[in-house]
Amino acid sequence: MKKIFITAFIFVVLVSISCNTGNQSIANNESSIALVVHGGAGTILKENMTLERESQYREYLSNALNIGYEILKNGGTSLDAIQAVIMQMEDSPLFNAGKGAVFTNEGTNEMDASIMDGSNLNAGAVAAIKNIKNPIQLARLVMEESPHVMLAQVGAVTFAEKYRIPKEDDDYFYTKRRWDALQRAQQKNSESSELNRSLNNDDQIYSTVGAVALDKYGNLAAGTSTGGRTNKQFGRVGDSPIIGAGTYANNSTCAISSTGHGEYFMRLLTAYDISAIMEYSGKSIQEAAEIAIQDKLTNLGGTGGVIGLDIHGKIVMEFNTAGMYRGYILSDGNPNVFIYKDE
Amino acid sequence: MKKIFITAFIFVVLVSISCNTGNQSIANNESSIALVVHGGAGTILKENMTLERESQYREYLSNALNIGYEILKNGGTSLDAIQAVIMQMEDSPLFNAGKGAVFTNEGTNEMDASIMDGSNLNAGAVAAIKNIKNPIQLARLVMEESPHVMLAQVGAVTFAEKYRIPKEDDDYFYTKRRWDALQRAQQKNSESSELNRSLNNDDQIYSTVGAVALDKYGNLAAGTSTGGRTNKQFGRVGDSPIIGAGTYANNSTCAISSTGHGEYFMRLLTAYDISAIMEYSGKSIQEAAEIAIQDKLTNLGGTGGVIGLDIHGKIVMEFNTAGMYRGYILSDGNPNVFIYKDE
Repeated sequence: MKKIFITAFIFVVLVSISCNTGNQSIANNESSIALVVHGGAGTILKENMTLERESQYREYLSNALNIGYEILKNGGTSLDAIQAVIMQMEDSPLFNAGKGAVFTNEGTNEMDASIMDGSNLNAGAVAAIKNIKNPIQLARLVMEESPHVMLAQVGAVTFAEKYRIPKEDDDYFYTKRRWDALQRAQQKNSESSELNRSLNNDDQIYSTVGAVALDKYGNLAAGTSTGGRTNKQFGRVGDSPIIGAGTYANNSTCAISSTGHGEYFMRLLTAYDISAIMEYSGKSIQEAAEIAIQDKLTNLGGTGGVIGLDIHGKIVMEFNTAGMYRGYILSDGNPNVFIYKDE
Repeated sequence: MKKIFITAFIFVVLVSISCNTGNQSIANNESSIALVVHGGAGTILKENMTLERESQYREYLSNALNIGYEILKNGGTSLDAIQAVIMQMEDSPLFNAGKGAVFTNEGTNEMDASIMDGSNLNAGAVAAIKNIKNPIQLARLVMEESPHVMLAQVGAVTFAEKYRIPKEDDDYFYTKRRWDALQRAQQKNSESSELNRSLNNDDQIYSTVGAVALDKYGNLAAGTSTGGRTNKQFGRVGDSPIIGAGTYANNSTCAISSTGHGEYFMRLLTAYDISAIMEYSGKSIQEAAEIAIQDKLTNLGGTGGVIGLDIHGKIVMEFNTAGMYRGYILSDGNPNVFIYKDE
């Protein structure tokens, strides 16, 4: 009888430990290659989602994971994998990056992106750029071909032209869904906050995209790309192109990509903070991400989330919003995709 | 005899501890108000300096310290003090900020600045802006009057115009010394590295300006302003406007302003790293700054330095270059100014 009681007690303890790891810690996984993606966090509620749109997101995230997995499986680098995955998402109107970028207060599309190589802490970023089809591609060029870490606006585009990376005209970046969101935001600003209720669910979602990967050479990389916030002051730079806020990678700790209300991530240096908590406090990536998101971000009043990987392929997907478009793929090659908090 | 020996031993130990605190730890100072400034770090060697220029720098740094001290002594905030000090330095042609800003590869002057309030982690930054007389003033406006942390280029200037802060035309920012530095840099690039020898000493100095302060209300603040690097790709954004790289302030740890080869500070998040080492490892500001500069920055191949203050008025001025224009003032009101490493 005593034996049964002890066994039951141990069972309860184990269950409570595994239930207490926050949002989606993939308990004790280790993987020689790994890829995690996000397509933004925010007020993503099942009741506001059509079945069609939900399946579009799931399919797109799965495809992106499969593309990255093929690269990693065939000996590609983590940098190549995250670049390909993010470019795929930038080419979709579903996400607020590249083609699907939101509009500024001037009705323009200004995009931010950054990339970081965990093996040597090299990094590249572009801020408030226009007409570049794949901002993540330009961020990588800045990292590899310029002596700088960040280029902004016209200077960045002039640099891009030297390398002939694809540009698109303004029409390419027009999507009705994002244009309508700008109209609602501007109507809200010019009339009254009563209109808040009429805001579409889209308006409270930060659908930045990002990816982190671990390759078979043991190198981590992270990247993030975004159109920023609907109706932002043109010229506003968010956290996505800020190394340490939106993106961070370091083989000795972790690779992180953030999504959310960027100004809070910039003030908290959320991506680097997770690395610092691991390095200086000896916490796991899951514990560090919980401190960064559930304590620090939440206490400051910010919303959003992060995806991350440590050098052992341990995954984290931590957020304080109703949902985050997200997924991961490990050595087994099975994509796992999630949208809502309770999945 | 034994007593004398023990006393002598303790004396030697104490001396060796106080000698081992790196560049200019002001051992055990505590001060209810405090201000530290820098005017850039680099290859600042006595043999390359005229007596006249040296005394100009010393005088200017002393004046800046006195201006900030008057504000702090009379109950002004740390934010007001650092803004006034940095504006004073931006108005001088001596420093690479505001009037004395260096030239980009296009012969333009593009400036970066940021400011942070340690009491609430609010922050403001401007990147790659032209024709604004005092970029630090605009950074503060971004912090206090916009919902954003960072604005870049034309968007930032458009925002500035709303608040009618002083602008200047291109001629105001022309200084012969900076123009000559651009010519030398471009000649060097287009011919051969042999010309390296003909580079003026100015070219290896990052004379960014910055200030950190502690006010009588116990609040820390930090700010940094720069013209960036001579011959930089136009649109390049350095560490000065990046919260966590060039500037950081948090009442629970420290206030930091960086100067140096910005790309390294961006990859290392040097300003925030010092705070993180204090927070998570329990180190003093001096120990944390030594790790950040003498270990991490140096190991990655970067050069430069930081000034900093903790909440007790403890000062740090740490750099791995031959010199750093720097100084501090405490409650006693005596400005202390230094240029070379061995002062």
